[in-house]
Amino acid sequence: MYLSMRALQPKIIEWLNEDVGSGDITTENIIPQQAKTVGLIQAKQRGIVAGINVAGLVFTTLAPDIEFTPMVEDGDEVEPHTVLAKIEGDAHVILTGERLALNLLQHMSGIATLTSSYARLAEGTKAHVVDTRKTLPGLRMLEKYAIRVGGGRNHRMGLYDAVMIKDNHIKVAGGIKEAVRMTRNEISHTVKIEVETETLDQVKEALEAGADIIMLDNMSIEMIEEAVALIGGRAIVEASGGVTKERLPAIAKAGVDIISIGALTNSAPILDISLDIGEIKY
Amino acid sequence: MYLSMRALQPKIIEWLNEDVGSGDITTENIIPQQAKTVGLIQAKQRGIVAGINVAGLVFTTLAPDIEFTPMVEDGDEVEPHTVLAKIEGDAHVILTGERLALNLLQHMSGIATLTSSYARLAEGTKAHVVDTRKTLPGLRMLEKYAIRVGGGRNHRMGLYDAVMIKDNHIKVAGGIKEAVRMTRNEISHTVKIEVETETLDQVKEALEAGADIIMLDNMSIEMIEEAVALIGGRAIVEASGGVTKERLPAIAKAGVDIISIGALTNSAPILDISLDIGEIKY
Amino acid sequence: MYLSMRALQPKIIEWLNEDVGSGDITTENIIPQQAKTVGLIQAKQRGIVAGINVAGLVFTTLAPDIEFTPMVEDGDEVEPHTVLAKIEGDAHVILTGERLALNLLQHMSGIATLTSSYARLAEGTKAHVVDTRKTLPGLRMLEKYAIRVGGGRNHRMGLYDAVMIKDNHIKVAGGIKEAVRMTRNEISHTVKIEVETETLDQVKEALEAGADIIMLDNMSIEMIEEAVALIGGRAIVEASGGVTKERLPAIAKAGVDIISIGALTNSAPILDISLDIGEIKY
Amino acid sequence: MYLSMRALQPKIIEWLNEDVGSGDITTENIIPQQAKTVGLIQAKQRGIVAGINVAGLVFTTLAPDIEFTPMVEDGDEVEPHTVLAKIEGDAHVILTGERLALNLLQHMSGIATLTSSYARLAEGTKAHVVDTRKTLPGLRMLEKYAIRVGGGRNHRMGLYDAVMIKDNHIKVAGGIKEAVRMTRNEISHTVKIEVETETLDQVKEALEAGADIIMLDNMSIEMIEEAVALIGGRAIVEASGGVTKERLPAIAKAGVDIISIGALTNSAPILDISLDIGEIKY
Amino acid sequence: MYLSMRALQPKIIEWLNEDVGSGDITTENIIPQQAKTVGLIQAKQRGIVAGINVAGLVFTTLAPDIEFTPMVEDGDEVEPHTVLAKIEGDAHVILTGERLALNLLQHMSGIATLTSSYARLAEGTKAHVVDTRKTLPGLRMLEKYAIRVGGGRNHRMGLYDAVMIKDNHIKVAGGIKEAVRMTRNEISHTVKIEVETETLDQVKEALEAGADIIMLDNMSIEMIEEAVALIGGRAIVEASGGVTKERLPAIAKAGVDIISIGALTNSAPILDISLDIGEIKY
Amino acid sequence: MYLSMRALQPKIIEWLNEDVGSGDITTENIIPQQAKTVGLIQAKQRGIVAGINVAGLVFTTLAPDIEFTPMVEDGDEVEPHTVLAKIEGDAHVILTGERLALNLLQHMSGIATLTSSYARLAEGTKAHVVDTRKTLPGLRMLEKYAIRVGGGRNHRMGLYDAVMIKDNHIKVAGGIKEAVRMTRNEISHTVKIEVETETLDQVKEALEAGADIIMLDNMSIEMIEEAVALIGGRAIVEASGGVTKERLPAIAKAGVDIISIGALTNSAPILDISLDIGEIKY
Repeated sequence: MYLSMRALQPKIIEWLNEDVGSGDITTENIIPQQAKTVGLIQAKQRGIVAGINVAGLVFTTLAPDIEFTPMVEDGDEVEPHTVLAKIEGDAHVILTGERLALNLLQHMSGIATLTSSYARLAEGTKAHVVDTRKTLPGLRMLEKYAIRVGGGRNHRMGLYDAVMIKDNHIKVAGGIKEAVRMTRNEISHTVKIEVETETLDQVKEALEAGADIIMLDNMSIEMIEEAVALIGGRAIVEASGGVTKERLPAIAKAGVDIISIGALTNSAPILDISLDIGEIKY
Repeated sequence: MYLSMRALQPKIIEWLNEDVGSGDITTENIIPQQAKTVGLIQAKQRGIVAGINVAGLVFTTLAPDIEFTPMVEDGDEVEPHTVLAKIEGDAHVILTGERLALNLLQHMSGIATLTSSYARLAEGTKAHVVDTRKTLPGLRMLEKYAIRVGGGRNHRMGLYDAVMIKDNHIKVAGGIKEAVRMTRNEISHTVKIEVETETLDQVKEALEAGADIIMLDNMSIEMIEEAVALIGGRAIVEASGGVTKERLPAIAKAGVDIISIGALTNSAPILDISLDIGEIKY
Repeated sequence: MYLSMRALQPKIIEWLNEDVGSGDITTENIIPQQAKTVGLIQAKQRGIVAGINVAGLVFTTLAPDIEFTPMVEDGDEVEPHTVLAKIEGDAHVILTGERLALNLLQHMSGIATLTSSYARLAEGTKAHVVDTRKTLPGLRMLEKYAIRVGGGRNHRMGLYDAVMIKDNHIKVAGGIKEAVRMTRNEISHTVKIEVETETLDQVKEALEAGADIIMLDNMSIEMIEEAVALIGGRAIVEASGGVTKERLPAIAKAGVDIISIGALTNSAPILDISLDIGEIKY
Repeated sequence: MYLSMRALQPKIIEWLNEDVGSGDITTENIIPQQAKTVGLIQAKQRGIVAGINVAGLVFTTLAPDIEFTPMVEDGDEVEPHTVLAKIEGDAHVILTGERLALNLLQHMSGIATLTSSYARLAEGTKAHVVDTRKTLPGLRMLEKYAIRVGGGRNHRMGLYDAVMIKDNHIKVAGGIKEAVRMTRNEISHTVKIEVETETLDQVKEALEAGADIIMLDNMSIEMIEEAVALIGGRAIVEASGGVTKERLPAIAKAGVDIISIGALTNSAPILDISLDIGEIKY
Repeated sequence: MYLSMRALQPKIIEWLNEDVGSGDITTENIIPQQAKTVGLIQAKQRGIVAGINVAGLVFTTLAPDIEFTPMVEDGDEVEPHTVLAKIEGDAHVILTGERLALNLLQHMSGIATLTSSYARLAEGTKAHVVDTRKTLPGLRMLEKYAIRVGGGRNHRMGLYDAVMIKDNHIKVAGGIKEAVRMTRNEISHTVKIEVETETLDQVKEALEAGADIIMLDNMSIEMIEEAVALIGGRAIVEASGGVTKERLPAIAKAGVDIISIGALTNSAPILDISLDIGEIKY
Repeated sequence: MYLSMRALQPKIIEWLNEDVGSGDITTENIIPQQAKTVGLIQAKQRGIVAGINVAGLVFTTLAPDIEFTPMVEDGDEVEPHTVLAKIEGDAHVILTGERLALNLLQHMSGIATLTSSYARLAEGTKAHVVDTRKTLPGLRMLEKYAIRVGGGRNHRMGLYDAVMIKDNHIKVAGGIKEAVRMTRNEISHTVKIEVETETLDQVKEALEAGADIIMLDNMSIEMIEEAVALIGGRAIVEASGGVTKERLPAIAKAGVDIISIGALTNSAPILDISLDIGEIKY
């Protein structure tokens, strides 16, 4: 599981500006500049941790010499009171970075925990739970990482790195075959083409058109089973739309490769995590 | 209710880059560049709309000549199938901006809807429901606006525009009085000082120190009532911590001015909203 | 006194680009790259130093390993020839950063020195000298810091962090009371409301409206005294407009809390400071 | 006289962010969004106007459809009460942009006015008054323009566009000749070389080395006259250091081409200018 | 063929800053600001035009009201003296934008022309000529577009949107199969995996591992033919390395799908194009 | 020879984003994060190296602790197989930075090599080969440095740092004299004026106008000789237009000071250079 700290760094700076602005006027006027302390990040709920090093990057961005020691790894399931990380160094830095670090860690861990609860429902099948483009603006890279941490996989990053042919495209192109052909001729040979289908006829047409991935949109379990049989391994099969925890096991057992769920990223409640700050010494 | 489109514009551009990157390779290769269409944004759930003009800004940022016509105003309560806005113009623009516009509108409306459900529980009292700094990184300005739309008010914008003295500050300063004095001497006369208290003794001390706002942290209803009586209108009283929908009416009736709730921003599920695209003409 | 080096850093880089651009074509072509030297920053006039670490940040931004040793602290009153700081390291860095470091240090010390000369005239009263929004574009954070260093305090940071109701707002709202009410209902409980008044009737109206701060705009000493009596400690009193060194003592004695002066920031002459560079060794 | 609005635009946006931030919370909550008004920019002191279109750019950056009508041109000498420009349109835009527009216009006009007072002292001679690199960080382009408006000329833009050989360079190079040679070999044939001299021997050496410009640093009038005679038109002669209004006429008459003065930019008081806002209609 | 003007705009601004900086000091001081003229962009060599609207964007970025009328479309083959576009409007804008517009148009057309000359050698086969990551830094999006204009196709955009397993990866993973498996488990189902092979054994291994694309690196024509036969349409076949115009027809006939060539982007000479400016009127 | 790493750093970051984006999905999923290796940069062709430290900056930007040891200096002529630099450290960093480092080094060395081949043709004369503004957008600073490394000199950086009067300017001004006068009156005394001439009459006129540099545009050798004689050392003489390797020696011998050649930057083929990566250890 990899997350590019290089790509993340400028966003951390932007987010610090959002919260800290010209300065933390409480801490700066009360806590001596040379004061040191120790902070402990602790889980307050059971769940899957994601983003522990993102939290660390908040503090080391404020001051490179802060000591941030993770006590767990992303993906670990933790209990209430589990210590997730220890932060030692300037009290200013720890107090000033606290909120952003927690906001990130709680949101990412919330997504990982939710993803994990879905992914477990597909265990024993070949189906993978994946995210969608229904992410919170500016947070996609982190949310997609949290999905992987939670045991899911990712769908495309954005509109630029995979073709997704929907009903509007099909109508304008004059059919699935034509739509696939029009894109295949222009895109890189490294890019896959996915076609969204609503009927078995469309599934057939997509298969004949040579789609790499066929999405079954809002189909019943029975239709999904028929579609999987029809495709017979000649394309990746993705189920999407109306995926609840209740329906997920049946969808997974129907033989699809991929189950995509928007709620993983746009409606995940946080995992409750706190930062307890020890004695401040100076 | 005001939201600065000027301050928002660069973020819309950044978020479009996140989703669209070097281009929407499906639409660009299938839909003719001169194609026109009409899109209708529709509610799929009952709730409070927030961000309708933010959605509009996504499309007009992509092409200034797109016609975006809001059919409701922020703050309106809508039913399933209510049309929220109509978008007319380039099909490319409407298809490419769809996801970002919906991601923003759904998130903001989700927060407004949740806020409204809390705010209604305080009706008939003088208490106002407010947000916290537990916002999603990069989205604070929009989330705070959605809170206002939902009938709440805002707490401070960040660490820079109000003093909030917590237990660590009190310990280092050597008491609440000293902490208030240290900040009062340095900050602008336009800035308020809030003190977080856990006991009635601390409430008294904060009052004597001349705190503008006294936060009652995680207190029982009885303690809140005592604190309110003790303060007697000489400072703004804020209740915070453990505010559930169950407890909120009693807290409000206890006479506080402000009730702050982190869950309004960091755990609000989206309000489900869709964009239906009409016939594409060219 | 605190200044956020984190928030300042990107501006230092921008300002270095303004002066140095693609390079210092004199130094680069004459001084060997490995050359070392020592520079001494010296006052050439009596005054109050402000920004010594800002000057240091210019050099450490160019090269983190430069040794910048301040010999005074911000707020110190210095005499001609006082050494303010010693800089040791790469000759390129010291020669290239010299002008920007001095431009900043001279401007900030000029403001601190001017502020100090005003602040001393209010000594023995409770009045504080404060700045205004009449700052030089892009330099507000540094200028407001220099004000504090010189013994003044700050007014609001900008249009966003305090309400200031002026005559135009009053006219549109239909009176001071209405204007205060309109803002109170929308803003955070952490934000103060200031009302600009020109008559004692307006002062009374502002007081009744519950203004947190009442500004007495361009009033005579007698009117100020009446206003102070009328307010009787129920709001912060700010005198503004036409504050000369001649009038300041009388205004301060009239009992106001705050005296705001635009000239502190927009017309302060520099404090003359030089950088003397020692032998260059390589 | 030319000023690049293209290069200025991003700075206006940055400066608006500094003052307006997330919004003008007074105006936004009181003045209706559709309100219109008219503002008049008026001189309150006699002086030279500079930056009238810079002020205009502040308003048109906030809203492209604002009508900004300059009534004077940069370089015009105005009397108190002269109307400099009329602004018609959204009341929000005029109220929100007011301070930044005035801060810029007052600072630039202050510099132009001061420059003009120096430039007039050199009239009747061939000497031109020029600025230095002693500008306020971030404002160099505007300050250099104001210098030209005031009847002065500009020195180099920064360290990158002309060679300026000072004593440290001379010592390291082992003499003026060697220093000139070292730079001549590396720089573009379009770039001039200036040598700073303190003695007539150095002037001679610089002349023999082929310097394009010879700076006479802090020399007496007599030495300046000798230097001018010695140079005999074979290089541009620049006088610098200790240029007061008292000494300027004699320096100019001594036959130099250029007189550079740091105080033009770093210590110019503002020219007092106000913005009077008419009735707000809606 | 699509190029995102939205994504290009900020780069045009950056490149204008590089060339124009604080202003075009020749034009600004000689040509009246209201002067108008007409410019004609003309080919001076036979070749394929690419980037005509990129050239247009340079001028409309400088002034939105400039009239830029393309006379050809990207992909058109033109002769010397063919007029490619007409530009009408402000003389300042046309003179100032000229160099950047031509630099872009000449470089892009040079790449399209070179690509076309290679692509023609593969005509009659199924092989497509594609680019590599050997692009000029900052210009990849434009260069990849020019490749498509010239009749080629694109390889992956960067390291982030397709997997390319090379010898180092294979060694560390312990074999091709293991390397494919390690990436397949982590990446999106929308991303393809390419394996670089040097022997037929590796080709076999890649095929068995389920690689989507198999690159034949620096193989002889005979080996390529064997590899193509061995793969039998079960993966996309890419030939790479040492592709000269002499060898290209044989490689294409050997049955590969893709031929990648670094020289298309990093060593293409410009197509000579000029901008002739008509009479300047004012 | 100097290149500002400070000015280059943000561009390296931008270019890394172009190639690496959200991450190198191959390396990150296969190579362990703690893996170390050694890379050798080697020439594959004879030529002049330029940009060796630019390549180094790519790696140290990715990770400050990478050890980059240059084995040659910019300007060295190398043979095939010459090792140019050794890179030791994180395998991720070396694999991820490889392509950008090579793209830069190959392009810059290609320009230096081409420049050198032209510069040698002018040896024994006083003529210097210089570049033009025909550079690749965004790469000017690097390309101009490579020109110097290759034994050439630079022309102006852009439109902002020297005056270049062309036929359009002359026509509008009403003659060369008037054009020179119009610019001389406005520009800094540190800036030179160049006039483009096509006839000997224009040369004479430019000389009389006091041009600092006279460009002979597309003249025959005979005309160049006449022009040089006519100018007689009173201005710098630059030959431009149609400079081929065949004509260059005669132009140089004709006595010009400067020969400017656009092809040096816009059509230079790369110098072939590879990065060989050793065993990866972990």
